[in-house]
Amino acid sequence: MPEFIQLIPPQDALARWFEALGLPDLSHEELETIHSLNRVTAEDVIAQEPLPAFHRTNVDGYAVRAADTHGASESLPVYLRIVGEVPMGDAPRFQVSLGEAALIHTGGMLPEGADAVVMLEQTQTSRMDEIEVYKAVGHGENVLFKGEDVEVGQMVVPAGVRLRPEEIGGLLALGITRVKIRPLPRVGIISSGDEVIPPHHVPKPGQVRDINSYTLASLVEKVGGTPQFLGIIPDSPDILEERLAYALRNNDMVLITAGSSASTRDFTASVIARMGKPGVLVHGVNIKPGKPTILAVCDGKPVIGMPGNPVSALVIAHLFVQPMVEFLSGLRLGRPVPSLSARLSVNIASQAGREDYIPVRVIREGNGYAAEPIFYKSNFIFTLASADGLIRIPPDATGISAGEPVEVLFLRN
Amino acid sequence: MPEFIQLIPPQDALARWFEALGLPDLSHEELETIHSLNRVTAEDVIAQEPLPAFHRTNVDGYAVRAADTHGASESLPVYLRIVGEVPMGDAPRFQVSLGEAALIHTGGMLPEGADAVVMLEQTQTSRMDEIEVYKAVGHGENVLFKGEDVEVGQMVVPAGVRLRPEEIGGLLALGITRVKIRPLPRVGIISSGDEVIPPHHVPKPGQVRDINSYTLASLVEKVGGTPQFLGIIPDSPDILEERLAYALRNNDMVLITAGSSASTRDFTASVIARMGKPGVLVHGVNIKPGKPTILAVCDGKPVIGMPGNPVSALVIAHLFVQPMVEFLSGLRLGRPVPSLSARLSVNIASQAGREDYIPVRVIREGNGYAAEPIFYKSNFIFTLASADGLIRIPPDATGISAGEPVEVLFLRN
Repeated sequence: MPEFIQLIPPQDALARWFEALGLPDLSHEELETIHSLNRVTAEDVIAQEPLPAFHRTNVDGYAVRAADTHGASESLPVYLRIVGEVPMGDAPRFQVSLGEAALIHTGGMLPEGADAVVMLEQTQTSRMDEIEVYKAVGHGENVLFKGEDVEVGQMVVPAGVRLRPEEIGGLLALGITRVKIRPLPRVGIISSGDEVIPPHHVPKPGQVRDINSYTLASLVEKVGGTPQFLGIIPDSPDILEERLAYALRNNDMVLITAGSSASTRDFTASVIARMGKPGVLVHGVNIKPGKPTILAVCDGKPVIGMPGNPVSALVIAHLFVQPMVEFLSGLRLGRPVPSLSARLSVNIASQAGREDYIPVRVIREGNGYAAEPIFYKSNFIFTLASADGLIRIPPDATGISAGEPVEVLFLRN
Repeated sequence: MPEFIQLIPPQDALARWFEALGLPDLSHEELETIHSLNRVTAEDVIAQEPLPAFHRTNVDGYAVRAADTHGASESLPVYLRIVGEVPMGDAPRFQVSLGEAALIHTGGMLPEGADAVVMLEQTQTSRMDEIEVYKAVGHGENVLFKGEDVEVGQMVVPAGVRLRPEEIGGLLALGITRVKIRPLPRVGIISSGDEVIPPHHVPKPGQVRDINSYTLASLVEKVGGTPQFLGIIPDSPDILEERLAYALRNNDMVLITAGSSASTRDFTASVIARMGKPGVLVHGVNIKPGKPTILAVCDGKPVIGMPGNPVSALVIAHLFVQPMVEFLSGLRLGRPVPSLSARLSVNIASQAGREDYIPVRVIREGNGYAAEPIFYKSNFIFTLASADGLIRIPPDATGISAGEPVEVLFLRN
């Protein structure tokens, strides 16, 4: 009977898939910065203005010449003459000269002549136009100098970064109101199987509703792609060939959830192989669930054949589809992936040499967390709906004992 | 000079804010399930159908009566007569009787009479219409019985859960194509300060661009609310009062980024206090950055006065705005928050009794990660744009030493 000739470790399979890609698409589009949340920068962004744009204080107090406060203390205060109050949002119309001070509020512009700010609580008004200063300040104390945060010409956000609220705020502060970003990759999704019907239909005996199209589309959207539904097709090589050719013409990547029987998997691989060079790179990954995964590149476009089993399909999507969509979206400087440390609640066994992913529920336990494996039969659909995340059993382990620490990889919310 | 009368620990401040809320809004809307990603369920969802809907196999093999395979082994196989092949997506038109077997593919419907499936690799075709079975199977082996995943009447998704691709898939599998979800809370955002101008304007000396409105709006959107921009207002109690009254009429919650000077903060608190009962609950939190935070509830609606400093505003938004928006969005069963364990790269000092949040960069180091604190002056805008996350120094610590483990809370992507 047909079986997988060679099962490849997941990390090697992923590497092989990436290596076979051609040159990445370098096109870009321009968007208003305020609408660019989660988009990926297409080029390094360079500051055209300094930040702050003027010498500014970050406290409430008095702008002074630092040298004037030399030696000031509680017992021997320095007396300075008040020459004015700095207006917010405007340049002061006066200077601070020897022996003088000006009232200034957080964010206010330092008057000419001043080079430091004494905090309000370290002063006291002694007369109408005079303060006592109880503490000496150094040059630049409580002041942000012009360009100290960002200098003109400084690269503020590199190419290949997904924009968070933090970056968007920074760009707007510099007056960068438009930004060049990479187009969203289009990801075609084909669902196959004689038994598969749309979710709003009522299944007859032997039929099941298509859910992979929707779970995969949601995931593609979350990780930075535009999903394109290409419908449900029967288990037919001819129809798959026609649909896949159409999908490749109109998308940057194609996902196929294949029927799960061995014969369907086999013709899926043959059809993909005919679609372009170099064709099928991996047929069978040493992983559970998800062994029958097919990875291919057809004339520069990645294609993945995924198990029809919804749990397997989602696990494979997290491990293979997500990094590929992120790469196609232009992401080059990814951030470390947060996880959660927990203690395993029961022993779990695993076959040595294979990488296992086990869905777990995470439960608060004292100061930490317990990870409780969800045991399930293959093809159970509600398994992942009750899981908070996945734990990985490395290929060199034959299992993990209760009480051992595990890292929980979260299913994306 | 006016200072904070009592600084409250952040956890207590948050608890006080939540306690002062009245009864939560219980309204709901109905959406197509495929469009409900990230929305929060308004009621428990109950299965009206079983899953699977029929006895199904999860392997390729032969449907048999388990009793017939009793004692089968490599050396002493059992012989069974093939009576047919189960079609995919349809009910088999035959039964399996004593001494019989039927070819069946993964996902196929078990024929009447059969109660188990022998895997293909544990059989061999001996004659045209006969197989040898090399391994005994028990009742139900390789079979998912009708209703074994989900039973009719079972609660499949509880109220108060944010829907992930996993839940959406599960609902669709059950034919639940519409779902009752909670409306998105509307969150009004007021930015104040005489020196603040819109980001597309060119600042004159002393002016700075408004960025808090946009960073906060992005965050509100990510955590499940609908932001409403209410513009930039000058440092005037009268204008704030009028704008806040308008904001409260049209929103479920209001954020104000107040000017950062002591006088502005004071009138902000007095204006909020006049807007409804119980009014200001917290004025000053024992945290850095973010000390001047004001928490209030005005006639059932939460109001927060946040520091104008963009770094402080975002830290406070992560700690206070996010949980409140999530609560107003109906979220009741939150998932544990993933973080990342790292080793601190340098010593950092902290004032005992105060909770400190320090932005860090996370760097791969051997098998683990190093967290490198980003030291910054107050009012530096690009601090968070270069940070991967925040680390917390608990109030009972006077700092953390280099090499100690820390948990990095990620800034939401």
